[in-house]
Amino acid sequence: MISKDDYFILYMDEKSYYMLPFTENQSFSSHRGNVKFEGGMEYGDKLTSHMGTDFYVLRPTLADRMMKVKRRTTIIYPKEAGTILLELGIENGSRVIECGSGSGSLSVLLSRIVGPSGKIYSYERRPEHQESAIKNLSKFGKPEHVEFFLKDPVTDGGFGVTGVDSVFLDVPEPWTLIDAAYDALKGGGFIGTLNPCIEQIQTTVEKMEQSGFIRIRCIEILVRGIRVKKNMTRPHDRMIAHTGYLLFAQKINQKPGLKSE
Amino acid sequence: MISKDDYFILYMDEKSYYMLPFTENQSFSSHRGNVKFEGGMEYGDKLTSHMGTDFYVLRPTLADRMMKVKRRTTIIYPKEAGTILLELGIENGSRVIECGSGSGSLSVLLSRIVGPSGKIYSYERRPEHQESAIKNLSKFGKPEHVEFFLKDPVTDGGFGVTGVDSVFLDVPEPWTLIDAAYDALKGGGFIGTLNPCIEQIQTTVEKMEQSGFIRIRCIEILVRGIRVKKNMTRPHDRMIAHTGYLLFAQKINQKPGLKSE
Amino acid sequence: MISKDDYFILYMDEKSYYMLPFTENQSFSSHRGNVKFEGGMEYGDKLTSHMGTDFYVLRPTLADRMMKVKRRTTIIYPKEAGTILLELGIENGSRVIECGSGSGSLSVLLSRIVGPSGKIYSYERRPEHQESAIKNLSKFGKPEHVEFFLKDPVTDGGFGVTGVDSVFLDVPEPWTLIDAAYDALKGGGFIGTLNPCIEQIQTTVEKMEQSGFIRIRCIEILVRGIRVKKNMTRPHDRMIAHTGYLLFAQKINQKPGLKSE
Amino acid sequence: MISKDDYFILYMDEKSYYMLPFTENQSFSSHRGNVKFEGGMEYGDKLTSHMGTDFYVLRPTLADRMMKVKRRTTIIYPKEAGTILLELGIENGSRVIECGSGSGSLSVLLSRIVGPSGKIYSYERRPEHQESAIKNLSKFGKPEHVEFFLKDPVTDGGFGVTGVDSVFLDVPEPWTLIDAAYDALKGGGFIGTLNPCIEQIQTTVEKMEQSGFIRIRCIEILVRGIRVKKNMTRPHDRMIAHTGYLLFAQKINQKPGLKSE
Repeated sequence: MISKDDYFILYMDEKSYYMLPFTENQSFSSHRGNVKFEGGMEYGDKLTSHMGTDFYVLRPTLADRMMKVKRRTTIIYPKEAGTILLELGIENGSRVIECGSGSGSLSVLLSRIVGPSGKIYSYERRPEHQESAIKNLSKFGKPEHVEFFLKDPVTDGGFGVTGVDSVFLDVPEPWTLIDAAYDALKGGGFIGTLNPCIEQIQTTVEKMEQSGFIRIRCIEILVRGIRVKKNMTRPHDRMIAHTGYLLFAQKINQKPGLKSE
Repeated sequence: MISKDDYFILYMDEKSYYMLPFTENQSFSSHRGNVKFEGGMEYGDKLTSHMGTDFYVLRPTLADRMMKVKRRTTIIYPKEAGTILLELGIENGSRVIECGSGSGSLSVLLSRIVGPSGKIYSYERRPEHQESAIKNLSKFGKPEHVEFFLKDPVTDGGFGVTGVDSVFLDVPEPWTLIDAAYDALKGGGFIGTLNPCIEQIQTTVEKMEQSGFIRIRCIEILVRGIRVKKNMTRPHDRMIAHTGYLLFAQKINQKPGLKSE
Repeated sequence: MISKDDYFILYMDEKSYYMLPFTENQSFSSHRGNVKFEGGMEYGDKLTSHMGTDFYVLRPTLADRMMKVKRRTTIIYPKEAGTILLELGIENGSRVIECGSGSGSLSVLLSRIVGPSGKIYSYERRPEHQESAIKNLSKFGKPEHVEFFLKDPVTDGGFGVTGVDSVFLDVPEPWTLIDAAYDALKGGGFIGTLNPCIEQIQTTVEKMEQSGFIRIRCIEILVRGIRVKKNMTRPHDRMIAHTGYLLFAQKINQKPGLKSE
Repeated sequence: MISKDDYFILYMDEKSYYMLPFTENQSFSSHRGNVKFEGGMEYGDKLTSHMGTDFYVLRPTLADRMMKVKRRTTIIYPKEAGTILLELGIENGSRVIECGSGSGSLSVLLSRIVGPSGKIYSYERRPEHQESAIKNLSKFGKPEHVEFFLKDPVTDGGFGVTGVDSVFLDVPEPWTLIDAAYDALKGGGFIGTLNPCIEQIQTTVEKMEQSGFIRIRCIEILVRGIRVKKNMTRPHDRMIAHTGYLLFAQKINQKPGLKSE
């Protein structure tokens, strides 16, 4: 049974679906008619509108939770987010810095992965973005695992947290935060960035190479939708061709240019 | 400090790195010389071989843990695994069926995501594969969160588990397991499959449509490596062009063709 | 000097350009102002509208000539057309069948490649499409090198032409024309098809294998636009992900299933 | 009937085929046995080796003629060459500059497209490459339509030809040849370059913008092979992910920064 304020996906078709909080006896209106949400409604139920259209009550995927945040900014997309988890070793119990908070779509994901033994430290310098991230997190994520900071770590003394497992930077000038990330990370720990333009990546790589990071690697991810239909199977004719370049690296204990021993 | 039997990545360059368990005073030989692992070694440390080559001691990423399993079978690749998490809602606390266990690369990942409040049920019908999966899991994963079953759910009465959040099928004929997956899943729960050939997808979609699944969607994921180097930045000249098609869907409570009420 | 009725591209920016026939003293109106085409205008000239916007008078590329035909049908795109030339050996002097004529975009290209010693035979069964193809060809192609046929070669006795170098089929059911193509082609000659759905390709491949064709191969072509701009270089965010699968093969002299001597 | 010295493709399977000149009674040896080429052999014929393997005698595609040149250098690939034709307006009668000649693979193609009323001007500064290009052209192309120049147009006074329709640059530093290309081209004429690294493209774009070119655009082309086989249809698992970025532009009559009238 879906409880009050639990979110569900109201699904009509591939292009029409909504993320809604449950309230008994509330109804939803669309151009295909109205449906009413009655007490005892379960995930998986079919509802039929007064115009005869079927709607389905589905559990939200993690991708839904990211995509359905109210956006004030460009968000991290699921196609990159999955790889970010894998390459930054983000798992149960991880302690992770993200900067900036943006609209909170990545915070939503991370907070649901790290669990009660982990922690997300989320930095943002613009109050209106932070507010938006906090709101989205409280709706779709696990706010109890996220600590928000309203500050610019570039000008305001770094992250102020140490020994974290991973740092993810979603800012236009990631190179300005590489030193702060170095100070916050464990030895051998993970850093990642996402940027649309190759010059941003070039500048960040150069900075990483000078600042104690190794195993620097860059990828981009393309996702093609395939329509599977009898005698009409084919890739979709349009796709998102580029969101950004992902850059990953790991911290080493001795910065290049420094003498050892 | 790295403890006895902890795994680390010994990194020389992009093409040469190894996943090794730590034993004090053990050494590693390569064509670039030998390095010795002394007590007190830390993640992030640099080791220099007797031939002068630098090696780095790094934390394994989740992608490393998947890719470095000893393989008896084709494995799930990180590029798909991230999306599987996102689309199957696999997070802290999830209860997930995977079938088959294969070499255990996905079990490794899932066991590190769901944490102590979650559970992975892993099915395999070939004893030699199960054995391999168990070994790999004990090295790179969290065996305490995984329960293994040696059985063929097609011929042997289904999964025998109910109310799970997600089912992932990595078998050549996923359509034979759709009914078993339906019985095991919660209402609105998630199913996913991965197969290389379009005919496998077509048959599975047809079966899903008849068996109480909706929001069926298929994608493929392409990852391009980018070399970022001063005045020589370019995509790699070769790439993995296809591992498989990912298919996702969700369970609805009323099978098509059945009367309601 | 541009002569009366010569076509030129009037180019404002990447998204705004037009293919126009030259008439002295005619003018062109846009939301960025009017420009007048005076006698003596040359390719490469800059014209400035009364509102101060620059327009450039450019030669049309072959891609422009294909894309700017008036469309009654889906057209062949330049990204596939170039490969069609290369894989079907279409060069100076080639004799080529195309079926159907469609809107004539491919006829335009082929007619400009084969020259006076070559010939295009273009088949179409719908009069309104043929009419459209003929009109487009007369504007953008070399009509003197194209012979049009209004017929359905499936039901009406094949192509009625023999010894051609290449056959290109742009029809929804190419398998119905494989035998006719076989009869029309030289030994070792080339056939190609373009279709959006994989089932069309599968059926055509099966028919080709039974009908005296070998070296059957299928590809798809993806083109990514790149924005090159100081500190803002990146792939475009959207792309055409799929137009169709290209299928190529070559005729052999002995049909499988037939005994030789 | 195939004449003496005509080239043909001897085709065994997708991975094993050869481009050979015909000589009566010559034979070809492979690990699948020997075949002999008798007088009267026709394109499309099947030959069976003494070990029972079938070989087919096929016409070479234009792609074959490009790929089978003896290589001293990286060559232009068919996947880019088709688009080069389309975007540089290279057709029957075109006058085209290419620089450098390289191994002559593009010269082979262009010489077969422009016909007797067109002309290719091919520049190369290394004698050993020119020699190789000339040899390849005489085997696979139309040498009568190509004029070779052994010179470096950068240091040696430009191309020395004017009023050409198109210029294609296949050199590591195309920006050094933009002014020479400008001088050689007709108004509104076409220029194209191909380079693997984004920095080469960035420098060339900057130079083009300052040197009288407009409609500058950059693309890259990806080709995926598809295996079409009953119940086993899928993209190939490996592909060429990057050969280079294609850059195209057109000449305008007034260089920016110069006064008109």
